[in-house]
Amino acid sequence: MPEIRKDPVFGRWVIIASGRRLRPNEFRGVSAPENPRNCPFCPGHEEETPPSVYTLYGKGAKGQGLNACAGDQTGKKQDWRLRVVLNKYPALVSGGSAARAADGIYERMEGIGIHEVVIETPDHNRQLEDMSVPEIADIFRTFILRVNELKKDPRIKYVMIFKNFGRNAGASLAHPHSQIVAMPMTPIRVAQEIAGAKKYREDRGVCVFCDILRQETRYKKRVVGETGNFLAVTPYASRFTFETWIIPKKHQSHFERMAPGLAADLAGIVKNTVGKLRASVEELSYNLIVHTMPLRDRAAGHYHWHIEIMPKLSRAAGFEWGTGFYINTVSPEDAAEMMNKGKKYKV
Amino acid sequence: MPEIRKDPVFGRWVIIASGRRLRPNEFRGVSAPENPRNCPFCPGHEEETPPSVYTLYGKGAKGQGLNACAGDQTGKKQDWRLRVVLNKYPALVSGGSAARAADGIYERMEGIGIHEVVIETPDHNRQLEDMSVPEIADIFRTFILRVNELKKDPRIKYVMIFKNFGRNAGASLAHPHSQIVAMPMTPIRVAQEIAGAKKYREDRGVCVFCDILRQETRYKKRVVGETGNFLAVTPYASRFTFETWIIPKKHQSHFERMAPGLAADLAGIVKNTVGKLRASVEELSYNLIVHTMPLRDRAAGHYHWHIEIMPKLSRAAGFEWGTGFYINTVSPEDAAEMMNKGKKYKV
Repeated sequence: MPEIRKDPVFGRWVIIASGRRLRPNEFRGVSAPENPRNCPFCPGHEEETPPSVYTLYGKGAKGQGLNACAGDQTGKKQDWRLRVVLNKYPALVSGGSAARAADGIYERMEGIGIHEVVIETPDHNRQLEDMSVPEIADIFRTFILRVNELKKDPRIKYVMIFKNFGRNAGASLAHPHSQIVAMPMTPIRVAQEIAGAKKYREDRGVCVFCDILRQETRYKKRVVGETGNFLAVTPYASRFTFETWIIPKKHQSHFERMAPGLAADLAGIVKNTVGKLRASVEELSYNLIVHTMPLRDRAAGHYHWHIEIMPKLSRAAGFEWGTGFYINTVSPEDAAEMMNKGKKYKV
Repeated sequence: MPEIRKDPVFGRWVIIASGRRLRPNEFRGVSAPENPRNCPFCPGHEEETPPSVYTLYGKGAKGQGLNACAGDQTGKKQDWRLRVVLNKYPALVSGGSAARAADGIYERMEGIGIHEVVIETPDHNRQLEDMSVPEIADIFRTFILRVNELKKDPRIKYVMIFKNFGRNAGASLAHPHSQIVAMPMTPIRVAQEIAGAKKYREDRGVCVFCDILRQETRYKKRVVGETGNFLAVTPYASRFTFETWIIPKKHQSHFERMAPGLAADLAGIVKNTVGKLRASVEELSYNLIVHTMPLRDRAAGHYHWHIEIMPKLSRAAGFEWGTGFYINTVSPEDAAEMMNKGKKYKV
């Protein structure tokens, strides 16, 4: 069983999970062309993943996602359009207790949690930006449903939703998928972000993300997308070249409390943003991360959920790791201009 | 001129340095075999780097480093054994002011600082672990000298010393080198680490690193090297597979205040540790980072300088970036055992 250990200096938690060493990696070594015939996420290979915990069947249509049948009991086995399965090589597993134990000066706990994979489409080569808005909306509605389901386990304090696309972003399989990790503590970086936002509100009386929305809407030069409910911007202090945040216009601290009616609007701006990144970046790799408040915290005026997309054009090196101090060789204003004009950036 | 921008949520600083986009990268794309004939760090190519700010001449001998002549004025131009030059593509530059300016809700300052490169040897292929102990001691004595020199600039608050080795660790040139970045603020990760150590001391009355030394010496299973003055351990909450810390046994908060007499001892344990990593990891890449207290802070009971070596076997993915929560598939105890037995780890 994985073990979670706490660093005594930083207070950061590390998962020691030797089982994950066994997972396949299509991208290892020389870029092996992925072979859909061997892909465990492709239709016909359902037996190669753990059983699904949630499935959407049929071709799908706008707004149909939430009403589709769940579980593998109904529908034809291969007639799915989205599946959620447990990760075969999980970072955390569900059996065990969340009690902490001392190990001399150190602290550890059992690696409990739930690690799920959302197989976003049966089509091996249909990337996020290629999907239709209703298809992407299905993915976001699925995230919301799963978080609310995972929240029923009283040991779970935080659910992290993310997508790794491309080898430079640490993806190990090419088939379009994202991941959901439910964990028994609030990760340190989440706590730090919320503490920073809280301090901003204490100092200035307003939500920092609401302030960002105001300034970026006025300034315009870092805006790369806008819908009725969302704004996409290259943030002022972008750590990564072409880093982009998608922020809901209406203040809300918890992603999973988003009105389902907004899913299509969110899907539209995600499709548009990733499409622009694809057009501007050669061999795009990125991490997409949903930033949200811990599950059991009350709705707060100081924190505002949002999505951060971090393209990985180069590898973070010693400087970044040592300092938490990033060097970005393209200003967010230039990045936004290239994205908006569809200009290709040469690495 | 580079610009330093502050993220309004996290308080982290980002350097926007478009000039660095031009720097060469031998590792870009398909692994081009490095060609020493084109290497700007090789003897005979001195004109391709900015002028050296410090040079060690001749073959060198134990203990001779600190007394060698500085500057390019003396000695034959190609008869050097170590050179420190300004980085041709600096993240920070020395002209400008450290004053902060508001940019609406944001904050920025000119990208002032000094970015130096330590060319560790004239030999293109002589890696750190291949060098003799006196050669490595020269490198560490040079770090100390440079930090004390850079400290004379009153704008400089922190000096970060690091080495990126190998393409997965973000190195852009193969010739053995390390980097020194002097900057006008304390990086957030350094501040967080010191705050964590301070809290530990407030809670328990002792330095956390002194406690780590005690527990690891007793436990033994994570020890991978020991000399009279230093202990090398795979830390309890290792973020990276084969992560190793080298900690001085005697409490001291500032690296640059290390007695020069300890340099040879430190060099020995660094050589030994990197050699063990080389033996245990295929295609080793790593970041080596000196963790130390900000220059102008007084010696403190709660902080203890040390070196962290982070092998990069795989790429950090969305989970790690989003959470500050690392997944490591090899326990530090197993890593230490493999390193001590010279066993090769298969990625």
